[in-house]
Amino acid sequence: MRSIMELGEKKVIKAIIDCLDKMPAMPIPFGDDVSAVELDRNRLVVVKTDMLVGKTDVPPGMSLKQAARKAVVMNISDFAAKGVRPLAVLSSLGLPQSFTDEDVRQIGLGLNEGAREYGTYIIGGDTNEASDLVISCSLLGVCGKRRLVKRSGARPGDLVATTGFFGKTAAGLKILLEGSHAPRGLRKVLAEAVLLPRARLKEGLALAEAEALTASIDSSDGLAWSLHELSEASNVGFTINSVPMAPEAIEFAESHGLDPLELSLYGGEEYELVVTVRPELCGKASKALLACGATLMRIGKVTEEKKIELKTNGETRPIQRRGWEHFRA
Amino acid sequence: MRSIMELGEKKVIKAIIDCLDKMPAMPIPFGDDVSAVELDRNRLVVVKTDMLVGKTDVPPGMSLKQAARKAVVMNISDFAAKGVRPLAVLSSLGLPQSFTDEDVRQIGLGLNEGAREYGTYIIGGDTNEASDLVISCSLLGVCGKRRLVKRSGARPGDLVATTGFFGKTAAGLKILLEGSHAPRGLRKVLAEAVLLPRARLKEGLALAEAEALTASIDSSDGLAWSLHELSEASNVGFTINSVPMAPEAIEFAESHGLDPLELSLYGGEEYELVVTVRPELCGKASKALLACGATLMRIGKVTEEKKIELKTNGETRPIQRRGWEHFRA
Repeated sequence: MRSIMELGEKKVIKAIIDCLDKMPAMPIPFGDDVSAVELDRNRLVVVKTDMLVGKTDVPPGMSLKQAARKAVVMNISDFAAKGVRPLAVLSSLGLPQSFTDEDVRQIGLGLNEGAREYGTYIIGGDTNEASDLVISCSLLGVCGKRRLVKRSGARPGDLVATTGFFGKTAAGLKILLEGSHAPRGLRKVLAEAVLLPRARLKEGLALAEAEALTASIDSSDGLAWSLHELSEASNVGFTINSVPMAPEAIEFAESHGLDPLELSLYGGEEYELVVTVRPELCGKASKALLACGATLMRIGKVTEEKKIELKTNGETRPIQRRGWEHFRA
Repeated sequence: MRSIMELGEKKVIKAIIDCLDKMPAMPIPFGDDVSAVELDRNRLVVVKTDMLVGKTDVPPGMSLKQAARKAVVMNISDFAAKGVRPLAVLSSLGLPQSFTDEDVRQIGLGLNEGAREYGTYIIGGDTNEASDLVISCSLLGVCGKRRLVKRSGARPGDLVATTGFFGKTAAGLKILLEGSHAPRGLRKVLAEAVLLPRARLKEGLALAEAEALTASIDSSDGLAWSLHELSEASNVGFTINSVPMAPEAIEFAESHGLDPLELSLYGGEEYELVVTVRPELCGKASKALLACGATLMRIGKVTEEKKIELKTNGETRPIQRRGWEHFRA
């Protein structure tokens, strides 16, 4: 017998999936960002559940309201990656006995804020006693079968792109968890990246609408991890030519003797989308993003060989499968 | 500020709902057993989430496999009460660091068993670290708008009925939690009522199909509590003439100097359905249940006056709002 801490999250998930009878003709395989059942010939009912646990997901400095908002937003982010509009949210709470009526109110306000920011509503839930704070949210949506963007569609020759810059949350976590110093203005930007994450919902919907993507994933476990997941699901590799590093992350890294590339690749808790784009539709995808105030940032290409490499200034190095994983000390 | 333990579950839930913007034209109000969004003119997408927490929901003697199965079944029971067939299950897990690969496997097997017993499948989920074992399941279904049986439809003159007997789980919990003694055969029946609960899904579907019900609820917080919830939602009262007490509960109560009525009314963790039936369709409802091997047990009548009373042998006494409630010492 091995402890789950030795196994790590991926093997824990595999051990569970191995016990399950598979639904016949499951429209989305296990391991993608969302699950679905067929509603009719053309449409899917899409669902997603993701749990926030106080111990691991709420850094010091994050209020209960922010934690509850984040519990909704991290689920919305997965819908964003798939191009699915969330219709409603359920929220199941585990509350420690020490909580007060005001704590509960802050959680209620945060749940509502998370839902309303993305045009949806909390429609039900459940409350329980627990030792940790636990906020388990589930999302519900309906979408066209052809529209949903899986992890598995990337093909050699496609472009790899993101919806924005990376590295701010890794720097923000260093500030919140390790007490790293940063000047006031910078500190605010970096901490907010952690405390008030924004899901790229309108961007994900616009990209799906443009029918320009072949695969998509969010980056909640970090950019490197997301590339590895896409690679595995699509059975392709990636050559990355530029990692979009946030200027604030570079500034923070420089003043702390850190590598901004490390912060940007392996940070985790990021909420940008990582997508592969049909080369001939790259202009259309760019325009779709521009129309919602965002930029399609091209970072590399999909390759046949199942390697994930960073090629910059004539130098090549592997991008490792590292990032946020549960059950790892 | 007051602690949630002083408030109790109902007020905690109210405090949260008070913070939420309400979805316009929400097809099912907050506080019913399931939630829903409109799919089209005639159909609803129905969802439900309910969390099992090791500390409060897993008595000594319950295996991990049984706990995981129960986490699915307690959600199915709510769908059963509404007459909705579950299409798929999501499961979000919080696992303590001390768990092993075999623990995880037992949880996977239990989840699968719970789903497959009711003709459905686990289609996705999420794993996390937590101090307690947490299994949060969400169900998904689609049903005709007119078919879904709410808590709010009971009308004076309707009959009140259940799908079976009460009291076994209260006795079983006394055995598991307090070490009460019972002869081997009896012990097995009573403990199994707790360890292997059965949701009345086929019964709930058959009753909804017969279009004979005006209101319905499951009895996971106990028969008395369910009657109070129906009373509140429908703005009616109940006169109960007979409480269906399980023979095994009576036997256990007699040998321990307990009141079997107390066990049957206020026990909790029951999974029978408590329904109100149009009087003219009572025969149809009975037949529908008989066809799936169950019996419609008439226990009383719906009254205009918002009182819940037990009238037996010429004696009248109130049925109290007592039962299982979280955040109560």
